[in-house]
Amino acid sequence: MKSIIRLYISHKIDAHEAIYIAEGQLHYLRNVMRVSIGDTILIFDGINGEFKACIVNITKKLITLNVMEKTRIQDTSHDIWIIFPILKKSKVNLLIEKTTELGVSCLQPIFTEYTNSDNLKINRLTLSAIEAAEQSRRLSIPVIKPVKKMSELLNCWDTDRRLLVMDETFIFDFDNNLEHKTLSKLDFDKRKLIKDAILIGPEGGFSSSELDLLENLPFVTKISLGQQILRSETAAIAALAIWSECVSN
Amino acid sequence: MKSIIRLYISHKIDAHEAIYIAEGQLHYLRNVMRVSIGDTILIFDGINGEFKACIVNITKKLITLNVMEKTRIQDTSHDIWIIFPILKKSKVNLLIEKTTELGVSCLQPIFTEYTNSDNLKINRLTLSAIEAAEQSRRLSIPVIKPVKKMSELLNCWDTDRRLLVMDETFIFDFDNNLEHKTLSKLDFDKRKLIKDAILIGPEGGFSSSELDLLENLPFVTKISLGQQILRSETAAIAALAIWSECVSN
Repeated sequence: MKSIIRLYISHKIDAHEAIYIAEGQLHYLRNVMRVSIGDTILIFDGINGEFKACIVNITKKLITLNVMEKTRIQDTSHDIWIIFPILKKSKVNLLIEKTTELGVSCLQPIFTEYTNSDNLKINRLTLSAIEAAEQSRRLSIPVIKPVKKMSELLNCWDTDRRLLVMDETFIFDFDNNLEHKTLSKLDFDKRKLIKDAILIGPEGGFSSSELDLLENLPFVTKISLGQQILRSETAAIAALAIWSECVSN
Repeated sequence: MKSIIRLYISHKIDAHEAIYIAEGQLHYLRNVMRVSIGDTILIFDGINGEFKACIVNITKKLITLNVMEKTRIQDTSHDIWIIFPILKKSKVNLLIEKTTELGVSCLQPIFTEYTNSDNLKINRLTLSAIEAAEQSRRLSIPVIKPVKKMSELLNCWDTDRRLLVMDETFIFDFDNNLEHKTLSKLDFDKRKLIKDAILIGPEGGFSSSELDLLENLPFVTKISLGQQILRSETAAIAALAIWSECVSN
């Protein structure tokens, strides 16, 4: 099964208009995918849905598409954020690619007491997210926010949004038979679109003052992901996969 | 929180005996972790549980440990296999590392009609799995099986084991409003240890003859992971995370 090319267009698409492709996307279509005049591809804008489009002209600087019929209408989906400590570049890339495939709406990198690297190139990461969205049949692109301190983020929190905190230090409670909530035991009100955020702990865990802070916030629920210690990026992917299964069933 | 060193020992451990560490693990302890005489580490064997051990001698060729008390007893856990098509090396590594963290018991790479690379170094992959197990607090190491043809694997299938098939071609049924089972709608008999296998489709999907074969096997259940197309390694990680949540709740 050869899959059809899908391309994100960063402005609103309407049927029967012309779309011009330049630079990176031009290179991808011309040199990587080797498209020809007359080929059909899918395009989506995150606003108006997905359309068929036909390639009508190819030059060195520009590809022209004619937008044909709409193939899928824009969906309104649940609003799920992943808040994650700054990690090594390869791990951040993995986290962004995989959570985009799994439907994340917003990615918020944070500084915690035990993280200090700040070398995140948000533009570069957005390109990874776009690529993952194109290949996964999503109709939207996740927003990648600039890095923030965790304390600042919590200070201006929208209290309508639940904050589900995954932290590896909870694991040791298993040995003491203490109970923690799991994602599948949460209430999900299926009558409306859900607004949640998943907070992943850093590799070294949260500091004790951070844990105290989280403990006392009314919008926080602590969540356990089982008895193994998961690396931060694994925890993000696993938590989002389980959350999505809970929400859609 | 600095985490204590955990090391897998490939033979049975008993309290109060001496253990000798050479070669790769010696290099890791001596040169990477820079241990000293008197340091305590954790060791596990996949048979007898986890023990504290004290470093009592360090030479260039050998580190000697004295095994102290048992810290955790060996658990009997559910038996979950991941069966996956051969993928690019980086994707196989990722799949093995992440599914080991998430508790997989056995990893079975397969050839399908649309896969042909056969360049898997099982020994190398086992080392990745051991490293992931050491860091994730697991008490066992997953078994990595030699590559097999999918048809051969299915021909000698133990019919007591359910085969849960994840395939991206099911996604298009969403557009036609056809229902597919999801993992959380399966029955899990919590009174006993569960024996399941998760089969991941190759990037190009299964061939139509493979889909026909799977359709007619009594131990097969087709499973949907939602409306996005997931890459094979993402599907493996997501499916195992959801399966584990279903089994333990």
